[in-house]
Amino acid sequence: MSQGRRQLVNDPLDVVAEALSGLARQHAGVLDVHPDPAFVARAADPADSAPRVALISGGGSGHEPLHSGFVGAGMLDAAVPGLIFSSPTAAQVEAATRHVDRGRGVLHIIKNYTGDVMNFGIAAELAGADGIEVARVIVDDDLATDGAGAGRRGTAAVIVVEKACGAAAARGVSLDELVTLGEGIVANARTMALAVEPLTHPGAAQTSFDLADDEVELGVGIHGERGTGRVALQPADALTDQLVDPLLAALALERGERVIAIVNGLGATHPLELAVVFARLGARLDTAGVEIARSLVGTYVSALDMGGVSITLVRADDALLDLWDAPVRTPALRW
Amino acid sequence: MSQGRRQLVNDPLDVVAEALSGLARQHAGVLDVHPDPAFVARAADPADSAPRVALISGGGSGHEPLHSGFVGAGMLDAAVPGLIFSSPTAAQVEAATRHVDRGRGVLHIIKNYTGDVMNFGIAAELAGADGIEVARVIVDDDLATDGAGAGRRGTAAVIVVEKACGAAAARGVSLDELVTLGEGIVANARTMALAVEPLTHPGAAQTSFDLADDEVELGVGIHGERGTGRVALQPADALTDQLVDPLLAALALERGERVIAIVNGLGATHPLELAVVFARLGARLDTAGVEIARSLVGTYVSALDMGGVSITLVRADDALLDLWDAPVRTPALRW
Repeated sequence: MSQGRRQLVNDPLDVVAEALSGLARQHAGVLDVHPDPAFVARAADPADSAPRVALISGGGSGHEPLHSGFVGAGMLDAAVPGLIFSSPTAAQVEAATRHVDRGRGVLHIIKNYTGDVMNFGIAAELAGADGIEVARVIVDDDLATDGAGAGRRGTAAVIVVEKACGAAAARGVSLDELVTLGEGIVANARTMALAVEPLTHPGAAQTSFDLADDEVELGVGIHGERGTGRVALQPADALTDQLVDPLLAALALERGERVIAIVNGLGATHPLELAVVFARLGARLDTAGVEIARSLVGTYVSALDMGGVSITLVRADDALLDLWDAPVRTPALRW
Repeated sequence: MSQGRRQLVNDPLDVVAEALSGLARQHAGVLDVHPDPAFVARAADPADSAPRVALISGGGSGHEPLHSGFVGAGMLDAAVPGLIFSSPTAAQVEAATRHVDRGRGVLHIIKNYTGDVMNFGIAAELAGADGIEVARVIVDDDLATDGAGAGRRGTAAVIVVEKACGAAAARGVSLDELVTLGEGIVANARTMALAVEPLTHPGAAQTSFDLADDEVELGVGIHGERGTGRVALQPADALTDQLVDPLLAALALERGERVIAIVNGLGATHPLELAVVFARLGARLDTAGVEIARSLVGTYVSALDMGGVSITLVRADDALLDLWDAPVRTPALRW
């Protein structure tokens, strides 16, 4: 391994708790951070007192602003953070589920990792035993793991599921309908990522994996998992094409179709780099006759301080775009 | 120098132009990117046709989202990007000044760097010769350069000047009054930064400076300039204190006073790190009896991919907080 990047941490084992304390302080009155079991929920809002389905997501920390940055009006009711790259416990998810329930059911939006699926599942059973109706959408958009034993991993498409289901829930859509909506988005969403620099765990002396000077990890996971292979370091346009072309093929996008596109920095990627990648993505989709109807370009699902980018494409129709455009007021998405 | 971080670039000399192309594409209909001379301006908005003062800022690229991310309703009318870490030309600034002028004058908001001050000054003279009234606010908040020959450098306090003056301009405040407002903010704003990792220029094989394993550059500039000295790598809380305490002293903040606080990542700094620093800042200000009335925590003024943080404190009264809270709709700030 290479020498790790130095970071601003105190006790590396305490970084998640300390960061939650900072989050609580910054967003006092808007977000409540419940300490034990730990979860982040919207503060009580008199303007949002009607019965409706409540939404939860969560997973390992280290991917901020995901998921706590998406808690707020029009999106999640609560986020459940585990330790770095570790699933939250079932007790955390259960506590969050009970907290947000308004009698119309709770939707669990889960990225497809074994620990997350298991712990959200246990929590759903425990809450269900007390009469709280829980349903789930599993997000598995990472094309690099297509055909893998545990199925595809979940990554940035979860933002679109959280945004659209959050908007629909605010409009009073039922739990069953939200599951159908979420699963429809997942079926039409794929992501491909690449790393140009490895990541360093907080306080670690070494990076979590190595890349030679001239290597890029194609299909890298958001925890630094190996992808589909290593390719030579190339200009950004050539690398972007190696993300976009498999996505177009996997989604069988045809001329005249529209997408929501996310160009996501993996942590240490500069806005200039993301803009360069977005420009190439746009040119490539022009050639394919596919319209970028909406886009996000920024660091939304980080992999600690990895260098690199993921591109997510989600096939979009008028109904999805209408949900996307609905007002949202969270720390990381506001319009 | 150490080995540089690999980045997603094509021709390193073309990165700013390519990134502007990506920005134009993402924000089509909201921002217009004028190619030559290059500047980024709000697209025409029928809802904003009244005469008022127009606001411009700019400077070297590599600090994104500054300044192009702050163009939009309630903030800047245009941003003028130079090449990486290089002042824009006077021709660029002049073109932007002519473009945004509505007959009530144009305010130049300039970070205090020799090239920027000179080129904005030339542009002001050229536009002024044609009857466009131009005034300027020079932002010099970097406490690490207090007493330096060229004066203090300008850094993240520029966000507060842009936000408050933008809100005031939208309310019809005159050019002279905006200068008074901006200068008042600058006089009550100071920033301290530190680097834990050096930066890499796009495509460069090596970092732009070196730090030993156990070193932190205290008072680093946003181009990697040397600061007040090197200190030992320490826990985040101890490092945070070394930023906060000089700020409290320099601003002579007294118990019961309020501040706008910005905890700004310098590029590759993770949201978890920034939240840890914000938590400590909050505790430190509690002890000092100073209230954080408003805050930003995120990467707003980057120094390419440097690792580290800056803390900005701005003394705030009701009038400034009212301007801060006014609606803003830009790529990087929205409320």
